[in-house]
Amino acid sequence: MTPVKNSPLVRKLSAFVALSEAELAVLDHLHQRRRTFLAGRDLVHQGQSEQAAYILSAGWVCSYKLQPDGTRQIVDFQIPGDFLGLRSVLLRTSDHSFEPLTDIQAAEVLKGDLLDAFTHTPRLAMAVLWAASRDEAMVVEHLVGIGRRNAEARMAHFLLELASRLALVGMGSREGYDCPLTQYHLADALGLSAVHVNRVLRQLRENGLVTFRDGHVSIHDHEGLIKLGEFDPAYLDQDGPLVR
Amino acid sequence: MTPVKNSPLVRKLSAFVALSEAELAVLDHLHQRRRTFLAGRDLVHQGQSEQAAYILSAGWVCSYKLQPDGTRQIVDFQIPGDFLGLRSVLLRTSDHSFEPLTDIQAAEVLKGDLLDAFTHTPRLAMAVLWAASRDEAMVVEHLVGIGRRNAEARMAHFLLELASRLALVGMGSREGYDCPLTQYHLADALGLSAVHVNRVLRQLRENGLVTFRDGHVSIHDHEGLIKLGEFDPAYLDQDGPLVR
Repeated sequence: MTPVKNSPLVRKLSAFVALSEAELAVLDHLHQRRRTFLAGRDLVHQGQSEQAAYILSAGWVCSYKLQPDGTRQIVDFQIPGDFLGLRSVLLRTSDHSFEPLTDIQAAEVLKGDLLDAFTHTPRLAMAVLWAASRDEAMVVEHLVGIGRRNAEARMAHFLLELASRLALVGMGSREGYDCPLTQYHLADALGLSAVHVNRVLRQLRENGLVTFRDGHVSIHDHEGLIKLGEFDPAYLDQDGPLVR
Repeated sequence: MTPVKNSPLVRKLSAFVALSEAELAVLDHLHQRRRTFLAGRDLVHQGQSEQAAYILSAGWVCSYKLQPDGTRQIVDFQIPGDFLGLRSVLLRTSDHSFEPLTDIQAAEVLKGDLLDAFTHTPRLAMAVLWAASRDEAMVVEHLVGIGRRNAEARMAHFLLELASRLALVGMGSREGYDCPLTQYHLADALGLSAVHVNRVLRQLRENGLVTFRDGHVSIHDHEGLIKLGEFDPAYLDQDGPLVR
């Protein structure tokens, strides 16, 4: 297992706060109950109560809501360093489900663990609130995307957001990244049909902007993609640390 | 001014945690820099940095994002007891703007105030994280609404969500509530045109479900509206307190 000091969560929170030895020790403790979960088996079901949260340390997960008519809206994808279900541990009932898209490694975190951590390291409480705020800022961006951006701009914005998030935890760069998502995932996240996703991706490739093929995203024209997606990474707030 | 013990924020956080005297004192301290802001003058501009957050104690606010093409997506409305710009104080740059829709009263909260509060009262840190999680759950619901619900269901869901939120802070009930929003606000929040909003509201009224007129929402058929909007209030998590 990865030593916690090099864990994705530590890399991510370091964008907000320069972590002390004591804070690293608390994060280490939060990682103690690590488990492997298999692709395709939900960790948390919508409507379940008394949930744990998880810190994802390897693999990809999607969070989604099922509508009564059976359609699925993917709310976001989680990558290493992200919390799964932080809302579920605080709100009594999980308002959405989590499905591992690959086999994953995740550490279980209970409400008591969080309260202990916050008691001993208030700056860590701020950092977790920062991470939650950043998650919310992403959902807001997706809301704006579905409400106001056309399909090409939405896709461009989405692929750039993933590039930035993955770069922060050492899993990609502005040149590209490995990505296990299918066109069905993209469709359910962006509010498009799979056929439309296919057409949009072909268009972006033919315009020399980006290629998504065989589980890899290759960004050919970073500036062009930013312009198309009207992507301003300020909401990801990862030029830290802010608190020293 | 309202004594802080009866403040909307205290009422709201009490749905999560049974607040102690010490915690109430810290909340009192957070309310010390109270000011009045006039309707129509933005508190926080998108892209501004080094922001304070605010605790709203009276009046209505909307948070929105301007798109480069000049269109506006309203992300949410804030009512008494809500934080304004909690994200802005943690993320370096505000990712959205806040406009008071009425004259409001709000208390300024700086990053240092939050860190102090968290240091002395870790349960309050949990409560603030709970409130932030609830805000995020609302944005997720709006995302699902715009992505997957038709116009009537979206409006029904929206009006019921406001009813629940307002009831929690003592400003309404399932029979109805005062509401200063215009059809333009509803349009920009729900991703509809103002004409469409008008038509949807007429439809809901003619079907005997709800009337929104002269600044007041009258709910005639609560069950019928819940069914139409597929509204499940679990994500608002206000049956507390969870932590005693």
